Amino acid sequence: MKSPVASAISFSLLGRRTAPPDIARLMTMALEQPGLLSLAAGFTDNNTLPVAAVQAAVEALAARPGEPEFLQYGLNQGRPQLRRLLAARLVAMEPSLDAGQLERHLFVTNGSQQALYLAIQTLCDPGDIVLVDRPSYFVFLELLTGLGVRAVSLPVDGHGLIDAVALDARLSELERSGKSGRVKAVYFVSYFSNPSARSMAEAEKSAVAEILSRHGLVVPVIEDAAYRELYFEQPHAARSVLELASWREFPKLYLSTFTKPFASGLKVGWGVCTDGAWLAAMVNAKGHHDFGTANFNQAICEHILTGDVFDLHLTKIRPAYAGKMRALHGALASAGLGASGWRWAVPGGGIYLWLEAPSDLDTGLESPFCRACIEAGVLYVPGALCFGDDVPKNFVRLSFGVLGEAGLQEAGRRFASVAKHFA
Amino acid sequence: MKSPVASAISFSLLGRRTAPPDIARLMTMALEQPGLLSLAAGFTDNNTLPVAAVQAAVEALAARPGEPEFLQYGLNQGRPQLRRLLAARLVAMEPSLDAGQLERHLFVTNGSQQALYLAIQTLCDPGDIVLVDRPSYFVFLELLTGLGVRAVSLPVDGHGLIDAVALDARLSELERSGKSGRVKAVYFVSYFSNPSARSMAEAEKSAVAEILSRHGLVVPVIEDAAYRELYFEQPHAARSVLELASWREFPKLYLSTFTKPFASGLKVGWGVCTDGAWLAAMVNAKGHHDFGTANFNQAICEHILTGDVFDLHLTKIRPAYAGKMRALHGALASAGLGASGWRWAVPGGGIYLWLEAPSDLDTGLESPFCRACIEAGVLYVPGALCFGDDVPKNFVRLSFGVLGEAGLQEAGRRFASVAKHFA
Repeated sequence: MKSPVASAISFSLLGRRTAPPDIARLMTMALEQPGLLSLAAGFTDNNTLPVAAVQAAVEALAARPGEPEFLQYGLNQGRPQLRRLLAARLVAMEPSLDAGQLERHLFVTNGSQQALYLAIQTLCDPGDIVLVDRPSYFVFLELLTGLGVRAVSLPVDGHGLIDAVALDARLSELERSGKSGRVKAVYFVSYFSNPSARSMAEAEKSAVAEILSRHGLVVPVIEDAAYRELYFEQPHAARSVLELASWREFPKLYLSTFTKPFASGLKVGWGVCTDGAWLAAMVNAKGHHDFGTANFNQAICEHILTGDVFDLHLTKIRPAYAGKMRALHGALASAGLGASGWRWAVPGGGIYLWLEAPSDLDTGLESPFCRACIEAGVLYVPGALCFGDDVPKNFVRLSFGVLGEAGLQEAGRRFASVAKHFA
Repeated sequence: MKSPVASAISFSLLGRRTAPPDIARLMTMALEQPGLLSLAAGFTDNNTLPVAAVQAAVEALAARPGEPEFLQYGLNQGRPQLRRLLAARLVAMEPSLDAGQLERHLFVTNGSQQALYLAIQTLCDPGDIVLVDRPSYFVFLELLTGLGVRAVSLPVDGHGLIDAVALDARLSELERSGKSGRVKAVYFVSYFSNPSARSMAEAEKSAVAEILSRHGLVVPVIEDAAYRELYFEQPHAARSVLELASWREFPKLYLSTFTKPFASGLKVGWGVCTDGAWLAAMVNAKGHHDFGTANFNQAICEHILTGDVFDLHLTKIRPAYAGKMRALHGALASAGLGASGWRWAVPGGGIYLWLEAPSDLDTGLESPFCRACIEAGVLYVPGALCFGDDVPKNFVRLSFGVLGEAGLQEAGRRFASVAKHFA
């Protein structure tokens, strides 16, 4: 895919592969339609952003005696005290983990997105394969395309659960075609996923490990837990790959972030990598990218983790997002979207509803349905963007992160009314 | 170079190439020697970091009516108002430029380091060549190695000026060996350079353009102006490649940053790219890296540019760095380093002194001289790290960014006393 703008430059393979994201076209369409209610962007809720907490953190930093090192360069791997606090927080969730070891294996990134990029850059050459959940996080899929890496889905059954028999068959197929050696990693969003809002059970995660092992594919696993703390009432009880015995032999990268549960504008994420050589490769590559995430932002996060500020914030936003979810879900349900043949689950966390339309309805960017929604004043993400392969056309991702409850109700009504028209 | 830590992972070419930076070994040696005075790190001065200005900016942002969008995700390319202010600032320096065009072609990055990474990623495949200044910024050279790109120096004469005749010969040599087509970009730090503290004259820059043109190499030029605003008394009068007629036909990337002249801990840099397709490729690749530099940090920079805060800060730090330079330079000079056969220029800006030792003195990381300096309690960056090819062993980079004047005087005395011992 050559870039559309005329240029005399001879670009690299990556430069030629790096197309504008599909979502950008959606945003352009949206801008042409004022009064549009967007259920598309995976942004967080402006009204619950922690302005006072961030301001107080900056005041506390400024008042510290000694030199203002928080405005100075920091370490490539991240602030030691922040890594210590994050390790302790993870141990509180998964008590069998060793805090000291976690802290040494933890690194801070520009949102968890950068950790995903470093992980794939250090593992995959063009033509390699990453196994991904189905559906999967679409910016991750774009990242793979940009790096020339092929996504192969972990097959799912009619309920969206990973289908062990089909996965076994798919891996055998890769073996037969001589491509098994190109599989370099497996990736999934396992807590209140973007886009499916689904959480994976321990048994489901363990089954993946067992089938991979059986095929001799003890490849790095990347568990994306960006939404783990964004539950509504109860955390999802499953342990992570860091604790599960089934994944013991695998190199593991566990990712989380301050963006979704605290402030996306700070752009601070983090990862724990159990493999020392892989961790070193990622940290060294980060040295070339930017030699360290903004020290100021890390110091703010450190400060809000030191007291109970972060937990108090979570206590405040969880019911807010639960209420927003109910507002959107309720609007869709009471407008009779179910009767139009649509199906969706009510999530226990996250900021998305994942809708399955009747199988013959195309919801893609260029579809009449998408155009009708924009004309009716509501925007969504076509589910087709969220599949690594075998792309179905009848899914939709709705985000309830941004709009208030009234806006969500109105957006839900608009969406359901278009859906009814197409039923 | 395989990573030294044992791992069962099959890494990508990049993962295998990405070695720990040489400078990390230096820092490890340093940690074993308490009381060491470091002239190595290119850090800025903690005592003049703008704590009050940043705190006031955060207060002003928090007090703004409306939603706190500064804690929300922003745009991949950067905040429009920040881009507008930066464009206006550049026009104030180079009046023939068009502010509206600059603003459209400007993008915000995680320090200018990320812009360098994106530039090379989108231009170069492994085995390609980038022409670099001599000496050059060593993290850029490491970045090239990490991406499998070869650095070829722009030859210089005995005064460190680019040698037009030798450059012409080198390009002819590349033509004869069939490698001319692998030259994908030319890079230089042209104002108070890291590491040489040297600034390039307009004629010198123009000569490079003319020789490249003569060889049909109208390749992208990357001008790194990170230290342009960090002059002591007078700005370096040369126009940038954006304004110089000699570079008109070349795709241009001009880089600058808030890290050195304001606060390295905010990690905000920026670039102007004159080629629309190249800009798009870099911004799209940034979408995969992190989809946008922390919006909060950009909003802070926007605020400090809106009034005269940034200029007042510069007015304050310029004499501070000038004083620090004089403290180090004076200590070296009065301890008789010149009489020991060392040469260096007195810079007009930046945070470095670039020293040439007698030609038979090895200053490398493993050299007796380096060990003697560490034993004497002073640390420097071996100049050898700063050359893309044909590496001389007798240069040294000293930074006066971090230490206060008394520390610099003592460090200078220690350094000169070791140098005298080796003379």
